Amino acid sequence: MIIGVLGLKGSYSEKAAMQWIEKNGTNNAHILEYCGDIQDVFVLLKNGSCDIGVVPLENSIEGSVGVTLDMLLENDMTVIGETIVAIEHCLLSRGKKEDIKVILSHPQGLGQCRHFLKEHFPEAELRTTGSTSHAAKLATEFEEMAAIASPDTAGLYDLNIIMPDIQDMKQNHTRFIIITKPDSPAARSLMMKDGQEEACKTSIIVYLDRDRPGALYEILGEFARNEINLTRIESRPSKKVLGDYIFYIDLEGCISDAIIKDAIYNIRSKVGMLKMLGSYPMFDPYCESNRVYMEKSMPSTD
Amino acid sequence: MIIGVLGLKGSYSEKAAMQWIEKNGTNNAHILEYCGDIQDVFVLLKNGSCDIGVVPLENSIEGSVGVTLDMLLENDMTVIGETIVAIEHCLLSRGKKEDIKVILSHPQGLGQCRHFLKEHFPEAELRTTGSTSHAAKLATEFEEMAAIASPDTAGLYDLNIIMPDIQDMKQNHTRFIIITKPDSPAARSLMMKDGQEEACKTSIIVYLDRDRPGALYEILGEFARNEINLTRIESRPSKKVLGDYIFYIDLEGCISDAIIKDAIYNIRSKVGMLKMLGSYPMFDPYCESNRVYMEKSMPSTD
Repeated sequence: MIIGVLGLKGSYSEKAAMQWIEKNGTNNAHILEYCGDIQDVFVLLKNGSCDIGVVPLENSIEGSVGVTLDMLLENDMTVIGETIVAIEHCLLSRGKKEDIKVILSHPQGLGQCRHFLKEHFPEAELRTTGSTSHAAKLATEFEEMAAIASPDTAGLYDLNIIMPDIQDMKQNHTRFIIITKPDSPAARSLMMKDGQEEACKTSIIVYLDRDRPGALYEILGEFARNEINLTRIESRPSKKVLGDYIFYIDLEGCISDAIIKDAIYNIRSKVGMLKMLGSYPMFDPYCESNRVYMEKSMPSTD
Repeated sequence: MIIGVLGLKGSYSEKAAMQWIEKNGTNNAHILEYCGDIQDVFVLLKNGSCDIGVVPLENSIEGSVGVTLDMLLENDMTVIGETIVAIEHCLLSRGKKEDIKVILSHPQGLGQCRHFLKEHFPEAELRTTGSTSHAAKLATEFEEMAAIASPDTAGLYDLNIIMPDIQDMKQNHTRFIIITKPDSPAARSLMMKDGQEEACKTSIIVYLDRDRPGALYEILGEFARNEINLTRIESRPSKKVLGDYIFYIDLEGCISDAIIKDAIYNIRSKVGMLKMLGSYPMFDPYCESNRVYMEKSMPSTD
C-alpha cells in the first residue's frame, strides 16, 4: 500500500499516517510517498500513484486548513479515517537565536506561532513552505535561517532546537483525515464495514441556495429532531460572490444507520448541492488507548 | 480624525478607508496612520493613537481573515461600519517574468492566487508580509523579487505590472470593517443613530457550552422564529481544545430594534458567552450607488 503524506520525512502528516496505520493496522506493507503540498497528495491519489492520502484538516489554534477543504470539494475523494496529532512546534536552526533573520514554515505553522513571532522576532522575514518539514530541510542552508517544525525534524536534518514548544497555546492538536479514491481497492479494504462496532462519524458538504435564508436552520433541525449530534460545522466561501458559503458538516453516526441515511435523504431536497465525503471510525481524544497520541513527546516548558 | 489602516500607501485597506469616508462623509479632516499588520491597528486603537481602524474581515476566495476574528474576540472594539473592495491582484516586479525567484504577499494574497502560483511559479520561494502593499515595497529591492499587490502600488513603488488580474477567480472581493474603541468620541459621532433609515447589520460572537450539542440549533431557531436573516455564520477554534468552537454571526437588523434586542436577550441565557460587536449600516453590493466600488479599476483580461 502506498500512502501519500504531506511533507518530507519527519512531517506531522507522516506521524499521522503512522498513528493511523498502528491503530487500524492493516498487515499490508506500506510505502510512504512524500508530497510537496496538499494539492499534490490529491493529484497522486487521482492518478493512482498512491492508494491512500493523509492531509491536515483543522488545527486547534489556527482552525481549518482551507486548501484541504477546497480540495475535498473539487475532487472526488472518500474520507476513510481520521486521527489527531499533538503538535509541538520548535524553532530549529543551524545558527544562534541572535543570528536568525529568516523564519520558514507552513502558513499554519506561522499562524500557530503568531504571538511568539511578534514577540521574539518582530523583524524576521517570514517564508511559507508547503510543509513544516520542508521548512526544516531548507533551514539547513544558512545559519541565519530557522524553521518552525517538529522536534523530530531537528534530528533528521541536523538542526538545533533553539526554542522548544513555541506555539501560542501550550495545547496544540491537528486533526488529519485519511482519504482514498472512492472506487479504489484500498478504499474497499479499509472502509468501515457494516456492523463494525466502533463509534462512527460522517462528513458532508452542503451548498445552500442563497435565496432561502432559513435553509441552514432547516438542515440543523433535521439533525436535531433525530438527535444526531454535530461535531463540527464550518463555512467556506463558495468563491462565486462574497457572502455566499458552502458548509462542511461532521456528524456522529454512520451512513449505514437508517436514522442518518434518512436525515441526509431529507436534507438533499432542501439544498443546492450535497456531497457525501464518507463515514469513518471516530478518533476519540478522551479514550485511554488514544491518550498517547494526544501527548507531546517532549517535556513541556511550563 | 486619525484612521489606522493595514499596510502602506496603496493598500487595499487604505482604499477601503477612503471608500467608507466618501460614503459616510464626515467632514472632519482625516489623517491615515499606516500599520505593519492587523494586530497593530488594534494596538493603535487601544492606546488612543488613532480614532478608527480599517481591517479586512473576509475574502470571497480565501475566506475569513483569522487574525481579525481573533483580535475582535480578544479586544474590546465596536464595529461601526463595513465596506467591500474589489481586489485585483497583479504580479509586480522591477525585473522580468523569467527572472522571478521570490514572490511576496500577505498570506491572503498568496492564498487567493494559489492556483496561479502553482501553475506559473511552482519553484518560486513564497514570503509572507504584513500587507500586500508592504510586499510591493519590498519587491523593489531586487529584480528577482515580485509582489502580489494592487495595481495602485505599481505606480507608487515604481514596479512593473508583469501579469495583471492573477487571482484564481476573476471575481474577488474583500469585506473590511471599520472599528473603534467603544467609548471614544469618534465612536459616538460615527455610530448609527436611532431612527437612521439605512438597512443595518449586527455582529455578535457566541461561545456555546460544549456539553449542549443542540445549542447552535437553538440559537438559529431564535433568529428563524423572529424572521431575522443571518448573513454569515463562521466558526473559529476556541483555542482551548480541538473540536471546541466560537461562532461569529452577522444578522440583518439593528440592536435598537425591539425584535433584535429580544432575540439577543434570549440567546444570552443559552450560551457560555455572547459578545456584541455592534450595529452598523450594511454595505449592499447590489445597490446602484455602490456598483463603482464593486468593479475593478483595470480592464479585465477575459
